[in-house]
Amino acid sequence: MIFGVVYQAPVMSPLQRQILSVAMRSGPLPRGDLATRLSSSRSRLSPEISQMLDLGVLRLGGLDESRGGRRGSLLIPGGADVGVLAGIDIDADRATVAVTTLDGTIIATEVAPITGDPEPRAVLGRTAKMLERCLPGDLGPLLSIGVSIPADIDPVTGLVESAPTMPRWLQLATAKFYAARFGVRTFVDNDVNVLALAEASCPGGDAHGRAFLVVKISSGVGCGIVVDGVVFRGSYGYAGDIGHISADPANLTLCACGNHGCLEALAAAPAIIRAANNLGAVAESSSESPPAGGPPLTMELIGRAAESGDARLAQLLREVGGHIGLVLAGLVSFFNPSCVIVTSGLAGGEGILLNAIRERIYGRTLPASSRDLKVLSSRFSGNAGGFGAAILAAQGFVGTAGPVPEARPPRR
Amino acid sequence: MIFGVVYQAPVMSPLQRQILSVAMRSGPLPRGDLATRLSSSRSRLSPEISQMLDLGVLRLGGLDESRGGRRGSLLIPGGADVGVLAGIDIDADRATVAVTTLDGTIIATEVAPITGDPEPRAVLGRTAKMLERCLPGDLGPLLSIGVSIPADIDPVTGLVESAPTMPRWLQLATAKFYAARFGVRTFVDNDVNVLALAEASCPGGDAHGRAFLVVKISSGVGCGIVVDGVVFRGSYGYAGDIGHISADPANLTLCACGNHGCLEALAAAPAIIRAANNLGAVAESSSESPPAGGPPLTMELIGRAAESGDARLAQLLREVGGHIGLVLAGLVSFFNPSCVIVTSGLAGGEGILLNAIRERIYGRTLPASSRDLKVLSSRFSGNAGGFGAAILAAQGFVGTAGPVPEARPPRR
Repeated sequence: MIFGVVYQAPVMSPLQRQILSVAMRSGPLPRGDLATRLSSSRSRLSPEISQMLDLGVLRLGGLDESRGGRRGSLLIPGGADVGVLAGIDIDADRATVAVTTLDGTIIATEVAPITGDPEPRAVLGRTAKMLERCLPGDLGPLLSIGVSIPADIDPVTGLVESAPTMPRWLQLATAKFYAARFGVRTFVDNDVNVLALAEASCPGGDAHGRAFLVVKISSGVGCGIVVDGVVFRGSYGYAGDIGHISADPANLTLCACGNHGCLEALAAAPAIIRAANNLGAVAESSSESPPAGGPPLTMELIGRAAESGDARLAQLLREVGGHIGLVLAGLVSFFNPSCVIVTSGLAGGEGILLNAIRERIYGRTLPASSRDLKVLSSRFSGNAGGFGAAILAAQGFVGTAGPVPEARPPRR
Repeated sequence: MIFGVVYQAPVMSPLQRQILSVAMRSGPLPRGDLATRLSSSRSRLSPEISQMLDLGVLRLGGLDESRGGRRGSLLIPGGADVGVLAGIDIDADRATVAVTTLDGTIIATEVAPITGDPEPRAVLGRTAKMLERCLPGDLGPLLSIGVSIPADIDPVTGLVESAPTMPRWLQLATAKFYAARFGVRTFVDNDVNVLALAEASCPGGDAHGRAFLVVKISSGVGCGIVVDGVVFRGSYGYAGDIGHISADPANLTLCACGNHGCLEALAAAPAIIRAANNLGAVAESSSESPPAGGPPLTMELIGRAAESGDARLAQLLREVGGHIGLVLAGLVSFFNPSCVIVTSGLAGGEGILLNAIRERIYGRTLPASSRDLKVLSSRFSGNAGGFGAAILAAQGFVGTAGPVPEARPPRR
């Protein structure tokens, strides 16, 4: 069922896709700036732009500020009539669908809780119905779909390769499902990479700089790496898997991977919750935490209790921040990012964690590496809803988020 | 003095520079492959290529293998008559100059030892004379110069910012000197980045994969990061400064930076030589090591002695390799490179070090991160002579090695 929408995406040349990619990321764009960013000339871009204006993929968006001469018109991406993008964010406890225009403006969104441990195909079917409701018939064609899930995706096969919080999703071909259902190219990526894309593409995302990191502390500890607005994936698609970096060689805490002292074993949510439970007596005395026999501890409850003065929980968060900060200090030295963005689900307590991370990063890097580094909380609390996934769809549509270029050698 | 060479570089459009950049890296290139790599069409590239053939910047280099239809001609970079590139490699004890064609073929080279601690300007003057001798008048114009020095270069000012082995070079404007003397654009970078470029550009460099690391153990421990054939520099130009990553938080060895347990304090050449000297009695009993009161220990002597059966020196190299391997394991998890290349100056003993590094990397990463990783010795022993610097010149000439795009905020 294709429910009354004609799926006819505008046909563009590779150069036109590059032009659109710049226009989508830049805000209203003077033609001269476009030429500079593409290392091209205005005369060479001019016929391409004319054709894109005819297609409706670009529009004129007002006049440039005067620079002495004639004021030029600014270019902006086309509106909903030329086509829309869909983002689908599937988390262990909730699914979010968002439909956006080419410039990232959300025009429809729907959220549904996921309870119990439903059959993955049932979740896929439900999100497809949510997307159908978000796509009324008077909009332009659906151009592409982006999907965010808390799992590692095999970059060659597109199958879910590792999904600690949603084990039933293993080996599932999520992109294939949506692509078959909606007849458009579908791009799937793990939640941290999608969160990183969302950070890069939100208003103000330019301020994060050329290269930045997004670190998510949840069931594991993951890292999204953004370079020039695009997620960096390494040679084989696994870049950012920082959960099993040694955070403390002397710490003998066993990790699920069979090693000890891994960042994930010391600083992921399960480790934090376990340690907080071991402080039981203190947690009970804290007014905000649940009484013994009450609901299980969550990161949010721990964060609130630490923020409201539970000294031992605050100390725990400082220790956890120390482990994360030591690993991040190494990555800052190596990668020289302009910004490290953290999200933890700790609610108000994240500030305590963040300061411990900062203390360790600034304490364990040379000034040249960290002089201009910012360490911030994410503007999204844990996930970016469908917005980041829609940005993934946009990058896929213009060709900057294809599969990892290097074919992985056959498994041995 | 411009010694009989007319410095008139061919004028190319940005697209033509991109075309040349691909041709320089690829070997004989079918037009269809060129279009694919530049996400462009053969018809759009055709007039640009014709013009480049007229300029001599490209040449025809034989016929493509038959693919059923008419065999197309292959494109290769122009010969020496269209212009040459100069690479200048300055090390603490030696200077090397190489002149290459656009495709990296060395057509002249000269090496001179540097003894004592000469005035840096005298070294610059001497290398300039070496370059003049390497540039006989019948060659085409000098297109650009690349300079390799064992120092951090401020990416905005181009000044030497930190040079542990050559402290007199601090704040020196090396690029400016050559640019003024030869009237061409000059690009300067630290020795590890230049070594990484050389590894990427040597025959077989493609086998290193999309993203790889080059680690150099000398007076410090540095890392060059290559992504898609270009050195990655991070947001501010300091990426790869891995010497002060914590290799062992419990180790209290003081580092020059004021911290303790830094990789450099445990695994750079001075630390290795100090530890080997502390094993004095053993070193004396080894036939290859110097007698007491003989010449001071060097990395080469240590490596040879370990290789010839000095068990305690071999054990030392294994310990050092463990420290380096632990840090590299973290970087492999984070960056997912296809290859890590090591150079140490240890001569035959490097194999012992390398195996200890491998043991730790494979022991401390998930299979997804390291399944297809190669860990190798560099084909260059410590530096790439002028070759890597000439590749830097080539990248500068075609515009892929410009200054770091992001302006660094003013120092605070």
